Amino acid sequence: MASQDVPKTCKVILADTMAKKMLAEVKDTLATVQGANAGKPTLVAFLANDDPAAGQYAAWSKKTCEENGFNFDLRKVDKESLEDAVVTANNDDAVDGILVYYPIWPNNQQQDRYIQETVALSKDVEGLCHTHLFNMYHNVRFLDPPANLKKSILPCTPLAIVKALEHLQIYNPILAYGNRLFGKTITVINRSEVNGRPLAALLANDGATVYSVDITGVQVFTRGSGIRAPRHQVLDKAGWGLQDALPLSDVVIGGVPAENFKVPTELIRDGAVCINFSSHRNFDGPAIKEKASIYVPSIGKVTIAVLLRNLVRLIANRPHPEGTSEAAEKARNEAFKDD
Amino acid sequence: MASQDVPKTCKVILADTMAKKMLAEVKDTLATVQGANAGKPTLVAFLANDDPAAGQYAAWSKKTCEENGFNFDLRKVDKESLEDAVVTANNDDAVDGILVYYPIWPNNQQQDRYIQETVALSKDVEGLCHTHLFNMYHNVRFLDPPANLKKSILPCTPLAIVKALEHLQIYNPILAYGNRLFGKTITVINRSEVNGRPLAALLANDGATVYSVDITGVQVFTRGSGIRAPRHQVLDKAGWGLQDALPLSDVVIGGVPAENFKVPTELIRDGAVCINFSSHRNFDGPAIKEKASIYVPSIGKVTIAVLLRNLVRLIANRPHPEGTSEAAEKARNEAFKDD
Repeated sequence: MASQDVPKTCKVILADTMAKKMLAEVKDTLATVQGANAGKPTLVAFLANDDPAAGQYAAWSKKTCEENGFNFDLRKVDKESLEDAVVTANNDDAVDGILVYYPIWPNNQQQDRYIQETVALSKDVEGLCHTHLFNMYHNVRFLDPPANLKKSILPCTPLAIVKALEHLQIYNPILAYGNRLFGKTITVINRSEVNGRPLAALLANDGATVYSVDITGVQVFTRGSGIRAPRHQVLDKAGWGLQDALPLSDVVIGGVPAENFKVPTELIRDGAVCINFSSHRNFDGPAIKEKASIYVPSIGKVTIAVLLRNLVRLIANRPHPEGTSEAAEKARNEAFKDD
Repeated sequence: MASQDVPKTCKVILADTMAKKMLAEVKDTLATVQGANAGKPTLVAFLANDDPAAGQYAAWSKKTCEENGFNFDLRKVDKESLEDAVVTANNDDAVDGILVYYPIWPNNQQQDRYIQETVALSKDVEGLCHTHLFNMYHNVRFLDPPANLKKSILPCTPLAIVKALEHLQIYNPILAYGNRLFGKTITVINRSEVNGRPLAALLANDGATVYSVDITGVQVFTRGSGIRAPRHQVLDKAGWGLQDALPLSDVVIGGVPAENFKVPTELIRDGAVCINFSSHRNFDGPAIKEKASIYVPSIGKVTIAVLLRNLVRLIANRPHPEGTSEAAEKARNEAFKDD
């Protein structure tokens, strides 16, 4: 066989492909959850900063909502009236989910956290309320044990990456649900509270050995030998850097919010799976395609699809009309695939 | 979550499960290839040794053939009349495929090779004729380029392991056909001409980095950086042993024909996939289940299913009745899944 007959070895997978597949599922699930004649669900988004990236994300979200049978209500408010506006939305039955564009107070993360906690748990489409975060870190999947009918909401970008890894067949469906990353080694570059740390926790809870890397150093998130622990533990890897973690990793996930940061291609394993979730390109485009088996250059569109998926989940989690049997509730909830 | 709620982490996959799935496909394919009213295909097996393992394998093969719509004709012959008996079967239109139980002359491998080459290419259900072997090593999939309608036959045990790895989702269907093991590191313990060496070649041709280990040392089979070469190359790893290869390996395949050999469990990566194709158990049963993500204790039944799959392939490869259009031939051949 002449070498020009060899297919290109790196498969580039676009977020759009994955998002479309998920949005089709979301539409089907919404129909099952709501029945045929229900109105469109409404997502309210609060824009209280003047970040152009947030504006862009809002425009995409609006388009995606409207194309898929959802109302998107963008409310521009000033920082000082945000809290009251969120409370009003919490109490408004016409609002199904609430989204806030962060950061609002870039120099006061605690105040952003305060707003996150102000959003009602039942409308927390971003999975940022403490109950949702606690459940995620503790590998607890339901809000209502032992009935286990109401799924706990997972944060959108980390869940988008989990869904991408499922699409890419890195989650092995042969293994038991909850253990499908057993045997995989993954590096996540970024350990922010919003994205990198929850992502490392989710992947380790699903069985992976995860090296979480940021400017302060490397930590390993793992369920230990034979993944016998029910949830991940975290250990510092003193003295480690990317040069130690990358050569061991089957999957490399970049989320560094900096124009000039690039993952050093020469440290990446031949045939690794590389995923970028930063709005900047963390991988060196031409070079990575010579080395990776799969490259996902961005994840944003999947994140928006996950946002709508979470919204439908919130609707399914609500108290059902009087007289709904437990079997009917269960069927409604089973319309959701594993997450 | 209490630790007793955690599902068992090692999934044990039995050959029987995989074989049944493949046999159902083989039956469907046979119907497509032959049409509804054709007679049962006939596999002739020559037993010219008194190896009890061969007798056992023959009994299994007979049962599997008869359960799945094939005739199995076991012919016991003495060593000296084997060659003539094979030639007679070659020339008999009622015989669709020929199988010989090796070794016949344990102290003269060349004479076994002579018999392998005596079997007609068109009836070589074991893929042991030189043309089939040459094509396998050279990653050439068809006998009739450029038409590419007649698939080259692959040897049964190595192909059974490939099919097992597909079933276990180690082959990633997201990647291009022919590259689906890119990024995987595999150790194969055994480098026999019948099993270990062809297996290492097949896996490396599909994109894996394969460490082939036997008592003479370690070799690496690989298509190189970015798997840009169209087929594998082989390099000696001077001074290497299992202690070097196993800790790097996502998949460990044992094929050592010795009762007392065990793969050292402590060298195997946590979460590795472990497959035994020896008739002896090469893995330490209880311990491996504490470490592996997937364990396949034996492969023999898949090998028999592959034998029938190869037989149907031989039938599909035969010159078709006058007047068969090329499109009809192509449809007939496409009844086979990738191999």
